[in-house]
Amino acid sequence: MAEASLIFEADEYRGRIARLQGEMARAQLNALLLTTPADVFYTTGFLTRFWESPARPWFILVLEAGDPVAVIPSIGAELMGRTWITQIRTWNAPDPADDGVSLLADTICGALPEDARIGVPMGLETHLRMPLADYGRVARAIAPRAFVDASEPVQRVREIKSEAEIDKLRAICTVADRAFARVPEFAGPGRPLDRVFADFQITLLEEGADWVAYVAGGAGPHGYGDVISPASPRPLGTGDVLMLDTGAVRDGYFCDFDRNFSIGPASDAVRRTHEALWRATQVALDALRPGMRANDAHRLMSGELERLGARALGGRLGHGLGITLTEWPSFTPADETELREGMVLTLEPGAEVAPGRILVHEEDIVLRAQGPELLSSRAPEHMMEIGG
Amino acid sequence: MAEASLIFEADEYRGRIARLQGEMARAQLNALLLTTPADVFYTTGFLTRFWESPARPWFILVLEAGDPVAVIPSIGAELMGRTWITQIRTWNAPDPADDGVSLLADTICGALPEDARIGVPMGLETHLRMPLADYGRVARAIAPRAFVDASEPVQRVREIKSEAEIDKLRAICTVADRAFARVPEFAGPGRPLDRVFADFQITLLEEGADWVAYVAGGAGPHGYGDVISPASPRPLGTGDVLMLDTGAVRDGYFCDFDRNFSIGPASDAVRRTHEALWRATQVALDALRPGMRANDAHRLMSGELERLGARALGGRLGHGLGITLTEWPSFTPADETELREGMVLTLEPGAEVAPGRILVHEEDIVLRAQGPELLSSRAPEHMMEIGG
Repeated sequence: MAEASLIFEADEYRGRIARLQGEMARAQLNALLLTTPADVFYTTGFLTRFWESPARPWFILVLEAGDPVAVIPSIGAELMGRTWITQIRTWNAPDPADDGVSLLADTICGALPEDARIGVPMGLETHLRMPLADYGRVARAIAPRAFVDASEPVQRVREIKSEAEIDKLRAICTVADRAFARVPEFAGPGRPLDRVFADFQITLLEEGADWVAYVAGGAGPHGYGDVISPASPRPLGTGDVLMLDTGAVRDGYFCDFDRNFSIGPASDAVRRTHEALWRATQVALDALRPGMRANDAHRLMSGELERLGARALGGRLGHGLGITLTEWPSFTPADETELREGMVLTLEPGAEVAPGRILVHEEDIVLRAQGPELLSSRAPEHMMEIGG
Repeated sequence: MAEASLIFEADEYRGRIARLQGEMARAQLNALLLTTPADVFYTTGFLTRFWESPARPWFILVLEAGDPVAVIPSIGAELMGRTWITQIRTWNAPDPADDGVSLLADTICGALPEDARIGVPMGLETHLRMPLADYGRVARAIAPRAFVDASEPVQRVREIKSEAEIDKLRAICTVADRAFARVPEFAGPGRPLDRVFADFQITLLEEGADWVAYVAGGAGPHGYGDVISPASPRPLGTGDVLMLDTGAVRDGYFCDFDRNFSIGPASDAVRRTHEALWRATQVALDALRPGMRANDAHRLMSGELERLGARALGGRLGHGLGITLTEWPSFTPADETELREGMVLTLEPGAEVAPGRILVHEEDIVLRAQGPELLSSRAPEHMMEIGG
């Protein structure tokens, strides 16, 4: 693990701010107001699990020129002080009368002219991490300065990963690869699924994850019912398909991929569906290029599933990945986001084996000029079998 | 672990909805719109780590009478279908053109008259987990129906825990108690702090946590610099104070308490400060009663610290606890929330040992008519020592 308070050299963050400032200029924004864990981490290197507490808002103000300003609860001053950020204003939060509202408004008014347009991410895959009523109060206090949508400038910058970021993403994918290789040590007939989930998390931590933000999965004959449920105490049985999916974290960067295991020999239907998913993924691995669009990735994978007679699931067949478990774009028919060099993405086709029983397969890639480079180790074409 | 898809019997949820409807009537609200993981879990039993993906919004509409309506991405239909909720409307998310906006607006307009007041939590410790621009779109589509603040009705209900909830909170505190008892197995001179963090998480999982949402801590001579930093790779040294703080989760309920360990013999200053924190906690354990206010808890603890000559930290000295790592109220001089029977709270006094070096001590309690009942095992008055 790198120095916990910075993760990267200050130049990495300076480069990000410069790219954000370029997009801000194009969008005629005088500032960005950022409030989420990912946006704060991205701009400052401030990494903490303390976001798990909903008690306090945190604000980063990115200006047209110069370094960002942090307006944060005093409990974070020590840690923020160890990042590259030097302008740090704090208040004693939580304060029911004024929880950073006037300090943020003063900071904005002191830094920006009255005709300023201040970008806040308001679009798809964003949310505002502060009380809605306080947002209204700040908006009134800074008027005639105005908040406008800034999803586009932020997402166009964050979606292109630097080589330093790609190294971090590869590192956590390697951790998960090692943990998946050890699944046969703790998953087998008779093992309760909730213990398998716990052992999988333990294994991820043993293999180098800082923490495990996400584990989901399922198990059942001919596949599972969904991919977002917590584990039940039901023991694995011969003939079950076990799927484990993880978003483990190292240095603030996520992996997000899954693996499927047959407990005992896989049925023909399961085997055929798994191979169709593997081939659909392969088509994307072979054909995806910068300049295509997100819906092209969907078309490549769903087309191959259809050609092989598999019943593709609705919903997206992959997405962006980085400092949250999932990032834009989404591989759906409706998403026309341009795929560009340096994007880190998941390929995640899913199909129905039988009514209500599904399989989902996932790999993580970085899109290079020549096409995808795998960050996860490629799953075997034939479903892995355990015990039985 | 209880049935993963419900956690409690349906009657527990029906009781919550009835209490919410009572508060809604008092606040003249015709409905509540809930969007956060905690509020959705509280009303439905829908428990998933999938919230880690920021891609999709989720909506629960609580009406004046009858059961709630879920308006959710289709990927959640299976799991929501296994809860007690029967009215489930889904859309194929994420959809860049309309990500649930028209389905939510239709549901609201179909269920509520034009003069309806719809409560949304907008106050301290809340946020809206949906894109801000889509919130504006829904607000325009449902006009003249209006969104108004509903922090008060939701918080007054959620803060009083049922005995079934208290059992869950006690269970996860017991898991953490067992994990803290094993810290000497993996923490000692020369052990890097980041490996101690990993081993502590592993131990929590071994002892029965479903997942570990939060671990923080610190280590250093005469205390630590802050309590929210991730672990550095620095090895523990003799004379360090090691603090580990955890929010582990079982069946969706959090513990939140810490323990301090001296690596080798503790210095006099550390020993004195730790005992002052222990005694400040004891004063609250002895004297806290329903009918007092949150700032009374602050006064009790800060008064005892002052009496013992300890330098109390700013910020809050404890807070609510339940289905997020921290809940309202906050033990600060400014928080006048009434403390009531059935509240689950943390007592968390902190003090400076030397400039920039602090100690924080924390226990979890449920407030009974006669006073606090401990949910965590009481820490020893004298700081625990490891190796040396």
